[in-house]
Amino acid sequence: MIIIGERINSSRSRIKKAIEEKDVGFIRGEATAQLERGAAFIDVNCGLSGSRETGDMEWLVNAIQGEKEIPFCIDSPSASALQAGASSSKGKVLINSITAEEERYKAVLPVALKHKCSIIALTMDSSGMPATAWDRVKVAEGLYRILKKEGVPDSDIYIDPLVRPVSSEPGQAQELLKAIPKIKELGDIKVVCGISNISYGLPRRSLVNSIFLSMALEAGLDGALIDPLDKVVMGAVRATEAVLGRDKYCMNYIKGHRGNEF
Amino acid sequence: MIIIGERINSSRSRIKKAIEEKDVGFIRGEATAQLERGAAFIDVNCGLSGSRETGDMEWLVNAIQGEKEIPFCIDSPSASALQAGASSSKGKVLINSITAEEERYKAVLPVALKHKCSIIALTMDSSGMPATAWDRVKVAEGLYRILKKEGVPDSDIYIDPLVRPVSSEPGQAQELLKAIPKIKELGDIKVVCGISNISYGLPRRSLVNSIFLSMALEAGLDGALIDPLDKVVMGAVRATEAVLGRDKYCMNYIKGHRGNEF
Repeated sequence: MIIIGERINSSRSRIKKAIEEKDVGFIRGEATAQLERGAAFIDVNCGLSGSRETGDMEWLVNAIQGEKEIPFCIDSPSASALQAGASSSKGKVLINSITAEEERYKAVLPVALKHKCSIIALTMDSSGMPATAWDRVKVAEGLYRILKKEGVPDSDIYIDPLVRPVSSEPGQAQELLKAIPKIKELGDIKVVCGISNISYGLPRRSLVNSIFLSMALEAGLDGALIDPLDKVVMGAVRATEAVLGRDKYCMNYIKGHRGNEF
Repeated sequence: MIIIGERINSSRSRIKKAIEEKDVGFIRGEATAQLERGAAFIDVNCGLSGSRETGDMEWLVNAIQGEKEIPFCIDSPSASALQAGASSSKGKVLINSITAEEERYKAVLPVALKHKCSIIALTMDSSGMPATAWDRVKVAEGLYRILKKEGVPDSDIYIDPLVRPVSSEPGQAQELLKAIPKIKELGDIKVVCGISNISYGLPRRSLVNSIFLSMALEAGLDGALIDPLDKVVMGAVRATEAVLGRDKYCMNYIKGHRGNEF
C-alpha cells in the first residue's frame, strides 16, 4: 500500500513546538523515521499556524528536504500554503487536497497544474460530507471530470472518499467500503483516505483504525494517511498484505516482524 | 459472531495433563473462562488420547458440565467419540465434524441425527482439500443436499470452508473469502471456520489470524473456532463488530476494552 506518513502535523504538540523553535533536526528526524518505515509520501500540515501557515510550510519543506528530494504530500486547504510547499519542493508533490466545492478547486487547481502535482480530491461538495456509497461515487465522478478536463492524467488522481466515525454513524464504514471499488472504475486512479476519523470517540483508536484499514485494503484501497510508527496499524498493514497474497513469500511481514516494526 | 472456544484441546500440553490427572477443577475453569469471554460453544477435542479418546470425551463432557447445561462442540472425526460426547451432554450439541467423504458422513450422521445435533460440515471430499472458491462451494452444495435429505434443518447446518496457509499458498485467503457469501446462498445456514491454519509457518500468528478473521467476518462468516482469551484476536473481533455497525453504540467494544478482554 501507499503509506502517506501523517506525523508532521502541527496539531501534534511536539511538532508545533519544533516549528516554533525552527528545530530542523527534530523535524527531519520525524520525516526520516517515517521513510524508513515505508512511507511513500511525507505529509506536511501546519494548519494550526494560522496566519503564519504559508511561511511555516515553506520552512518545513526546506527543513525536511535539505539537499535531498523528498516525496511530499502538502496538506492544506489554502492555495497559498500549497503554492509555498509545491514551489519549495525539489521533487514531485502530492497536493492534499481539493474538494468539489467550486471556490476551493478553482483556487487550488492552478497551483497543482503549474507544478504538475498529483492531487488528492475529497468527495465533498457544497452540500457537505457524503453519507452513502452512492453520494461518494457521484461526487468522485464530478471531481474526475473536472480534473480530466484540466488535463490531469489518471496517474496523478487520488480520490479520498472521506471516512466518518462509526461511533455516531454505525453504517458509515460499510458505505465507504462499498464506494472504493466503484470509484476505482472511473479510471486508472487511486483511492486513498485518512483513517483515524473512523474511531472518533472510541477507546483504543489504533485498534479500530487498523481493523478498518485492513478491510479497506481488501476492498481495493490503494493507500492511506497513517502513522507508520504506530505498531498496531503497521502490524495490520503487513498482515493484511500477507493474508491477501500481496506480499511475496510473506517477506515484508517477516521482515517487519524481525525489524520490530509492529 | 458465534465464538467456538477452542482451548479444551489435548494438543495443548496443559489440557493433556489435566485429562491424564482427571483434574476437574482445571478443565472446568478453562470452560468457564471461555464462556465468560463470550464463547457460544465449548469445543472439546481429545484426539491425542488415541485409543482412550471415547472414554476421555465422556469424562471431559461430564467434568465440564457438572450439573449445568453447557453448549458443547464435540470435536472428533470418530463416530464413537462423538457418540460419547453427544450422549453425555445435557444440552444441545454441535458436532465437529463431518466431511463429504462417504465413509465419514455415513458413520457420523446417525449419531448426529439420533441426538438432534447441529453439524459442522467441512468442504472436503474424497479428492482432498479444496483449493478454489468454486471447489468449496461445490462440496458445500453436496453436503447441504446430503444433510437436507436426512432431514437436518438449515438452522443446524454449519459449513466450514477450510482455511489453508497463506505462507505456502498465497491466494488461499481470497478464495475462501469469495466462497463465504456463495455458500450462504445455499440456505439459512451458517458458515464457520477454524482460523489458525491461515498463519501456519508465520511469526506473530495471532496477528495474522485476527486480520484474516476480521476480513472473513466482513465477508459474512458467522462464527469461528478461536481462543476467546487471546487478546489480539478478541480485540479484532470486537473492533470488527464495531466498525461494521454490528455492535449497537459500540457497547460491546467499549465493555470489552473496560473489561480487559483485549
